Amino acid sequence: MNMNRFDAWVHESLVQVEQALDAWVCPEAPAGLGEAMRYAVLGAGKRLRPLLVLAAAQAVRGQYAAALRAACAVELIHAYSLVHDDMPCMDNDVLRRGKPTLHVAFGEAKAMLAGDAMQALAFEVLTPETGVDPLLQVRLCAMLARASGPEGMAGGQAIDLASVGQQLSREQLHDMHRRKTGVLLQGSVLMGAACGQTTPEQWQALSDYGAALGVAFQVVDDILDVTQASDVLGKTAGKDEDCNKPTFVSVMGLQAASDYADELRQRAQAALQASGLEDTQWLSLLADKVVERQH
Amino acid sequence: MNMNRFDAWVHESLVQVEQALDAWVCPEAPAGLGEAMRYAVLGAGKRLRPLLVLAAAQAVRGQYAAALRAACAVELIHAYSLVHDDMPCMDNDVLRRGKPTLHVAFGEAKAMLAGDAMQALAFEVLTPETGVDPLLQVRLCAMLARASGPEGMAGGQAIDLASVGQQLSREQLHDMHRRKTGVLLQGSVLMGAACGQTTPEQWQALSDYGAALGVAFQVVDDILDVTQASDVLGKTAGKDEDCNKPTFVSVMGLQAASDYADELRQRAQAALQASGLEDTQWLSLLADKVVERQH
Repeated sequence: MNMNRFDAWVHESLVQVEQALDAWVCPEAPAGLGEAMRYAVLGAGKRLRPLLVLAAAQAVRGQYAAALRAACAVELIHAYSLVHDDMPCMDNDVLRRGKPTLHVAFGEAKAMLAGDAMQALAFEVLTPETGVDPLLQVRLCAMLARASGPEGMAGGQAIDLASVGQQLSREQLHDMHRRKTGVLLQGSVLMGAACGQTTPEQWQALSDYGAALGVAFQVVDDILDVTQASDVLGKTAGKDEDCNKPTFVSVMGLQAASDYADELRQRAQAALQASGLEDTQWLSLLADKVVERQH
Repeated sequence: MNMNRFDAWVHESLVQVEQALDAWVCPEAPAGLGEAMRYAVLGAGKRLRPLLVLAAAQAVRGQYAAALRAACAVELIHAYSLVHDDMPCMDNDVLRRGKPTLHVAFGEAKAMLAGDAMQALAFEVLTPETGVDPLLQVRLCAMLARASGPEGMAGGQAIDLASVGQQLSREQLHDMHRRKTGVLLQGSVLMGAACGQTTPEQWQALSDYGAALGVAFQVVDDILDVTQASDVLGKTAGKDEDCNKPTFVSVMGLQAASDYADELRQRAQAALQASGLEDTQWLSLLADKVVERQH
């Protein structure tokens, strides 16, 4: 029963996010740039980050209009990071979300520019002239900038680059992934939470939830990279090993990594319990979904 | 006399901007990312955009702290765009601000990431937790995002890419440069103006000043590209012609381009007169400087 309602909520949320992105990622941008951005953003992707924003906003009875903008902004940042990450000078990947990567379809120069434009658009989406409380807008901008900037996602990517062929300890691996993917996933939860009212304890609990979920996501990603085929993942499988990149599987082994993902899921669920918030069911089911996903 | 005071104001402003950038472009960003960002941002560049922000803020008696943040944010956006523009998949340039370009010094992957991180940092600089009016912060973020995004700078770069080897009319060339460099230069003036109070007429006059100055800057850039040597420019000279790119010189001829730059300077000065603002002397001298510069 709860599951059916969850599926309906996910479906409705994805429709809303897709419509909003479709409106904001303008096809009018010149010289094919809009077309390239739309190729990278629309009609694909699991939209985990937007769902986390919207679920957290619902848990704190936050403003829906602000949360929808935050959801789209986070997805734009995520999508730009995939475009740049796939480029030849980075991971040199040709398959993403089941399609040729953007630089394969549109050329490297346009892929780089489209990524740059998507990042700018994310901050434009967060700063409409009317309709959202300016203090909230500033806070959301600051959170997104920090999560995606030098100390966050971009910093994690830099560590990732430097780690190829290196031995990393479990702590170093954690730090890399916390920055590279964890901070933006946690940021999604907290940006949703910022759209409503929370006590400091509730904020901390949602932060803990987001942190656990962020690591769990990456552990499962590393597991799927070795256990699934490319056509299921929609991106090139076995990539980490081919690139000689340290992963949770290479550092811990497959079984221990799987146990660790379950432990993190429990930690995330415990944090939701500790929050004392009533309406955390979608956040709870999203944590299950992150750990149980097959792609 | 005015000139000595102007030089002193420029010197003092550059010191302030450099100190602020030095504090904000953190060397602590992991895996050498901070070092790469600092290489691209600090200690070089004419800082025209920050000077425009500060001069416009002074003309409207704007808040200095907010204007200094805006000045640094605009420079970060400008510097990231140069890093990405110089990469092999774009203009493939090896010399910038008299030094090897970032990808030559640090590798392509780190150059791309440093550019990405600099864009995020620009928005972080604009959204401090305290000290600036939130409504002003939101407005500055929105202006910067629009000026640098798909309809602005990134869009102009896309047109630039598509124009290689093409014949462009004077109107098409204008549209490309308005987006590619003009909108961010004009945006610098208006971000400074947003830090204080203006009537709609004053705002329009500063907008006209910024628009004329933006085109003038590019016309002079095109002239210098054919008349100056690389060691004077600090970047590769003759690049436009080598790349078969349309320029104001190739479209209009050298003498007509030079006359046009003077006409634009007069238009900028007339807009300042029309503004009725008292303290526009630095804006006026900056317009002269843009047209008279030798590099």
